[in-house]
Amino acid sequence: MSNLNPIAWIGDAATGHLRLLDQTQLPARETYLDCTDVQSVWDAIKRLSVRGAPEIGIAAAYGCVIGAQHNQFDHAADHLATSRPTAVNLFWAIDRMRRVQRREVHALLVEAKAIHDEDRRMCRSIGDYGLPLLRQHTTNGQAVLTHCNAGALATGGIGTATAPMYVAHEQGLPFRVFADETRPLLQGARLTACELQRAGIDVTLICDNMAAQVMREGKVGMVIVGADRIAANGDAANKIGTYGVAVLARHHHIPFYVAAPSSTFDLSIPDGSHIPIEQRGSEEITEGFGRRTAPDHVQTYSPAFDVTPASLIAAIITERGLIEPVTMQRVRQVIDSR
Amino acid sequence: MSNLNPIAWIGDAATGHLRLLDQTQLPARETYLDCTDVQSVWDAIKRLSVRGAPEIGIAAAYGCVIGAQHNQFDHAADHLATSRPTAVNLFWAIDRMRRVQRREVHALLVEAKAIHDEDRRMCRSIGDYGLPLLRQHTTNGQAVLTHCNAGALATGGIGTATAPMYVAHEQGLPFRVFADETRPLLQGARLTACELQRAGIDVTLICDNMAAQVMREGKVGMVIVGADRIAANGDAANKIGTYGVAVLARHHHIPFYVAAPSSTFDLSIPDGSHIPIEQRGSEEITEGFGRRTAPDHVQTYSPAFDVTPASLIAAIITERGLIEPVTMQRVRQVIDSR
Repeated sequence: MSNLNPIAWIGDAATGHLRLLDQTQLPARETYLDCTDVQSVWDAIKRLSVRGAPEIGIAAAYGCVIGAQHNQFDHAADHLATSRPTAVNLFWAIDRMRRVQRREVHALLVEAKAIHDEDRRMCRSIGDYGLPLLRQHTTNGQAVLTHCNAGALATGGIGTATAPMYVAHEQGLPFRVFADETRPLLQGARLTACELQRAGIDVTLICDNMAAQVMREGKVGMVIVGADRIAANGDAANKIGTYGVAVLARHHHIPFYVAAPSSTFDLSIPDGSHIPIEQRGSEEITEGFGRRTAPDHVQTYSPAFDVTPASLIAAIITERGLIEPVTMQRVRQVIDSR
Repeated sequence: MSNLNPIAWIGDAATGHLRLLDQTQLPARETYLDCTDVQSVWDAIKRLSVRGAPEIGIAAAYGCVIGAQHNQFDHAADHLATSRPTAVNLFWAIDRMRRVQRREVHALLVEAKAIHDEDRRMCRSIGDYGLPLLRQHTTNGQAVLTHCNAGALATGGIGTATAPMYVAHEQGLPFRVFADETRPLLQGARLTACELQRAGIDVTLICDNMAAQVMREGKVGMVIVGADRIAANGDAANKIGTYGVAVLARHHHIPFYVAAPSSTFDLSIPDGSHIPIEQRGSEEITEGFGRRTAPDHVQTYSPAFDVTPASLIAAIITERGLIEPVTMQRVRQVIDSR
């Protein structure tokens, strides 16, 4: 696993604060944000300094503790829920914090740390359930392809999509990974390539539009991606571009897996058409990296997520086991199993 | 059409030179390169200051004239042929120059200008043949999606993939265009969006990985792309990412068209597996935006082109008519028709 620590509570309940790795600065700089008020947590989520569905949930939980430190728990919970619309873990974590009986900092910090610890264990369990799939599909030297970063940097643990990779690497299994760079914000280039490389995993960076060619050359044995919200029927929202990868995988007869903890499921919506899709600003496309690379005033369209229909997903790897085939019935069996 | 002039011969045959728009500087700066020796033409092609299959051919033809000015025609022809491997127009144009009987600058300049003028007419004719297709598929407000730049900046005229758009715009047809930004070198963002916007065509820039979502939303009525080399069976090499767009179009039942002049066909090769694919340097992926956006020493894979099989192409739009269906027999009928 990478030695970057994306999220930590520093100090005690009454006077402590949240420390976040500023992921917008990676891989160039390893800088940390010390959040001592709710607004700075909200900003960190909004600006993607902290990102990845599970980690957004953890950050929001700690943000609620900070709210309580200022006697503003309810305001904090309401406000943090407005930071980003798609990842359901955000709302799930805030709801858990709201259900804490004694609304004081010690009890709330215990709950936030429980959310954080559980996420770490869920990642590990996803890795254990994903390992046999990775072993099966990477014989003959075929690689795992992943999109965006559903890695250690996106979670409290070893990631979701990356969890089977970290477990396989731990066990000495030889395999390689293709990481889509993932425009516009390059989470694949900046984060996935970075954390896998630091962990000693054989990773090759490609542009998003090279995935089809790499598949056609027979280099890819499986795709594993994360998710930001999964509907009751298994439709999965994830970083923009994921749906296209799923279509390409289907065309090339490559199994496409989603890895996500139960906290990413939203059983209140029947299918993916009910998942709100965040639209991002045009400057992320036109001047994402310090200089303008498109004409002034050009129109853009920039959905931050897309929805992959269940029909394109071979299985969803959760901490409670595999959802396979991906049907409403099987989702309910696995996710409601506790 | 855009008011940028990508390529021009300045002066007479004996003392004139080649002026190229430096497309690596667009859209930020409109700067021109004055090439007075063969090496500077070679460099301009290699560095993609001049790019696009038809325009590479035109530049190489003028480069042969410059070689002749220095009494080094044969060396110039041989050397320019090593600049880039995939676009067949380069070799086609150099071969035409070699067949000029009197190897002196006046006769050679006449031939180079003929290549340039013919390309302009071929573009126009492609636009005329493509117009009914564009009209047919953009009713109901559906857009044309294109990848990379097969535009006025890539040719001596109004482009290949863009030619039907310019002709339709001339005729007052309402339609819109989605331009894939086209990583790693962003020809879609920097060039296509730029030239269509200047021409007053309604263009929306998207990241490559958004094409699938835009198609899924029903916004795309057709795809038109250019080509760098087309084999005898209709398999078409074009900018990396094109093949993926073709797979996505097929999945969404959207017709996928290739627009290219007869000079882009290489009837000496039976299919696309014989087309050499240029590999580009890793820094185009890792530091393409002026600052490094990937970890140091990360492995990359960077094919500059991919091959779309004929089976995914609805028709090839040439200056000699439509190749439809895309079969070896129909390619021969249309391309050998003169």
